[in-house]
Amino acid sequence: GSKTLLRLDRNYIMLHKFFLFLFLSISFLASAQTKDDVDAATIKTIYANELTDGKCYPWLYDLCTKIGGRLSGSENAARAVDYTKKMLDTSGFTTRLQACMVPHWVRGVKEEVLVHSKQTGDSFLRALSIGNAVGTGAKGIEAEVIEVRSLDDVTALGDKVKGKIIFYNAPMNRTYMNTFRAYGEAGAQRYAGPSRAAQFGALGVLVRSLTTERDDYPHTGSLRYDDKFPKIPAICISTNDADKLSAAIKSESGLKIFMKSTCEMLPDVESFNVIAEIKGSEKPEEIIVIGGHLDSWDPAQGAHDDGAGSVQSMEVLHLLKRIGYKPKHTIRCVLFMNEENGLNGAKKYAEEAKKSTTEKHIFALESDEGGFAPREVSFEGDSSIFAQKYPKIETWNSLLKPYGVDITKGGSGADVGPLQDKNIILAGLRPDCNRYFDFHHTALDKIEGVNRRELELGAATITAIVYLVDKYF
Amino acid sequence: GSKTLLRLDRNYIMLHKFFLFLFLSISFLASAQTKDDVDAATIKTIYANELTDGKCYPWLYDLCTKIGGRLSGSENAARAVDYTKKMLDTSGFTTRLQACMVPHWVRGVKEEVLVHSKQTGDSFLRALSIGNAVGTGAKGIEAEVIEVRSLDDVTALGDKVKGKIIFYNAPMNRTYMNTFRAYGEAGAQRYAGPSRAAQFGALGVLVRSLTTERDDYPHTGSLRYDDKFPKIPAICISTNDADKLSAAIKSESGLKIFMKSTCEMLPDVESFNVIAEIKGSEKPEEIIVIGGHLDSWDPAQGAHDDGAGSVQSMEVLHLLKRIGYKPKHTIRCVLFMNEENGLNGAKKYAEEAKKSTTEKHIFALESDEGGFAPREVSFEGDSSIFAQKYPKIETWNSLLKPYGVDITKGGSGADVGPLQDKNIILAGLRPDCNRYFDFHHTALDKIEGVNRRELELGAATITAIVYLVDKYF
Repeated sequence: GSKTLLRLDRNYIMLHKFFLFLFLSISFLASAQTKDDVDAATIKTIYANELTDGKCYPWLYDLCTKIGGRLSGSENAARAVDYTKKMLDTSGFTTRLQACMVPHWVRGVKEEVLVHSKQTGDSFLRALSIGNAVGTGAKGIEAEVIEVRSLDDVTALGDKVKGKIIFYNAPMNRTYMNTFRAYGEAGAQRYAGPSRAAQFGALGVLVRSLTTERDDYPHTGSLRYDDKFPKIPAICISTNDADKLSAAIKSESGLKIFMKSTCEMLPDVESFNVIAEIKGSEKPEEIIVIGGHLDSWDPAQGAHDDGAGSVQSMEVLHLLKRIGYKPKHTIRCVLFMNEENGLNGAKKYAEEAKKSTTEKHIFALESDEGGFAPREVSFEGDSSIFAQKYPKIETWNSLLKPYGVDITKGGSGADVGPLQDKNIILAGLRPDCNRYFDFHHTALDKIEGVNRRELELGAATITAIVYLVDKYF
Repeated sequence: GSKTLLRLDRNYIMLHKFFLFLFLSISFLASAQTKDDVDAATIKTIYANELTDGKCYPWLYDLCTKIGGRLSGSENAARAVDYTKKMLDTSGFTTRLQACMVPHWVRGVKEEVLVHSKQTGDSFLRALSIGNAVGTGAKGIEAEVIEVRSLDDVTALGDKVKGKIIFYNAPMNRTYMNTFRAYGEAGAQRYAGPSRAAQFGALGVLVRSLTTERDDYPHTGSLRYDDKFPKIPAICISTNDADKLSAAIKSESGLKIFMKSTCEMLPDVESFNVIAEIKGSEKPEEIIVIGGHLDSWDPAQGAHDDGAGSVQSMEVLHLLKRIGYKPKHTIRCVLFMNEENGLNGAKKYAEEAKKSTTEKHIFALESDEGGFAPREVSFEGDSSIFAQKYPKIETWNSLLKPYGVDITKGGSGADVGPLQDKNIILAGLRPDCNRYFDFHHTALDKIEGVNRRELELGAATITAIVYLVDKYF
């Protein structure tokens, strides 16, 4: 009758958890099962648990909406350190902060980029200073603008660059299936373009935003100045505005631009990597790292980049605990500071890891390509260790296939990269890359752009890999 | 110098198109190339062209923002017929309208569902009548509510159902990787639940919205009444409100609900399938169909469901034309009317196809799972034709793999289903299914939820399959 149904319903969640536990216990204990069956069953439990009891989305929600953008050295970055450490502490993991010095770049007042057109009058372009750039000073600079598509174009122009503003306008190639490849190709204009322009006497640089879409949002990012040349101001403009500016340059010779930015690099400040772990039961000195970066660009909430990877890494510890898995090796979550404009957290972590006489890092996986549906996990390592381990890793392909994930050879990530040595396998989570650059480094990178289910599938995928590495390494 | 660069830039688009043409010509003509190379090159051209010159997104934008929801029999559905026919006409394809009678269900005034709680007072739930349902009449109905999780629960309750409002509250199973499987399982409560409740004397039905998320949006959809039992009103409520109602029922016995809806089924009206084609150069009587459905639920813009499939199907003709491909078979785009609450357009199309003495349908592919990144194309057919064709189809897997798409055995779709006979292979585009039910049949299914690049990748995938079918069937 109806009362029975209601009583059943009340106990539904408890029953559900009991059956999950029972299911897992059976998976582990049933001696008749083959190893593969146990692995398949455990991985199924990992995904099912994450999709019903996942915690990473609420954490990301808090990180995005209660803290927001958290550029290295900022007050928000410090708040993000406190928040994530607290979440990991209250869950009962062993946590610590690892101090590192980080750059402290500040944006200053709202940037101004103004096109002086004799034909259509003055118009403002949507603009953001490139991170690490110097400002123009409060008075701004004004000069004729020259459009180019590459650093080589600037070199070819030579003396003509002197006293001008250089406008790099190479679009990302939309035809590549891997949008990161397109980003890599077009990225030099933002990263190294300003110093190339300075080498030939330019006064400032505008850069077309790096995105596969046409939109009204400037996408920022970092640059690195070459010490041999003067540091000149550099500002990104939206792709729509880049198209407009390009059209204006074509229709009006000698077009002049005014640009103003008051950003500046302050002295380095102390910040922290946030570290939490489950100690290994058999080989506690052998370390498996999973990580993302906690810092993010200031105009955004840093939801996909890389709040997603941060909360997924936190989730791995939680999820292993929720399903009652006791790792043989130490599983360590590292939230790296300063990936965006320095990588100092990653360098610090690797430096201490390599100095350690008691710990040996055997595996590190990074998630820093957004909280989208996972498509691949790619692996790399020095040739000897890779030849030893990859044949086994490759067999996991059939275990991950039901979740739409392929095991591949390929890169890992910027934050785990410095850990590379002869003993370690590095890996990267590769989610669907189609939407990433719609959000990347813009005000659009906020919680609304993250789909809960996709984020959770990523966290479950990393956890499945960590389970397999822990079991078979 | 700078002038040269600018001149190059002006010619960039023309040069780009010339090289694409040159590339394609070489692909087709170079006799030294293997067949596989030609196919790989052509498919590369298809994707590259779509990602640079794709038209389907602007069409979808218009369909969503200038027309919007377009339920069968509505004025908007007629406008959608006009709009898409015009787009296909102006592109120079042979077009026609195929008349069919369709149901004309109207929603009436805004639905009301009110919970009378002695503990917390009256509160409204977010509600939408289920499509094809009868209304309560202007006075509404009020009765005690009983929560169940399945049709079997209703049968088990038996006489206790009499005079009550039945609340179906089975959530979609989030742990399935295929969200459509979860939809299929939970769908019976909406589709057949009302008649089951009526069989035992219920006055009305509330149904938990079918979505994998918890949200504040009621998700509508259709029901089918069993003629043996009275037709009773049936209304969907949002998942968040379903959880609230469930909690209220548990804490307060005899909880009463008021529900009001003035929806009604009017007499059938004439509507149309929109058909456009490129005549085959060698076997014009052999037809390859690609299609989606033009109708959509009224509270939404029908962006993913199924504006996406409609504009992708239109794009196939355009894209083949843009790359200069002359098909051997007739390639026909069919925009089916009335998938959502009758399937009358599909039935009409299949009826005429099967009656025809001059045409033979050899292949039909449907896109009706949203404009997300394509993951699979699945194929089915009667055993004899399938055994004959699938071994070749399977070899296309390596051609689609670079685009993240697998060739699989599996279902096709509701609109091409009626075409099934011994001569035809049916197929369905299977995009990533993780986000589909976030939008499905709600006000959220609007253009903002569709990613241009993902939509285009789907269109290119269908076009690649059509190219291969045309070449090898």
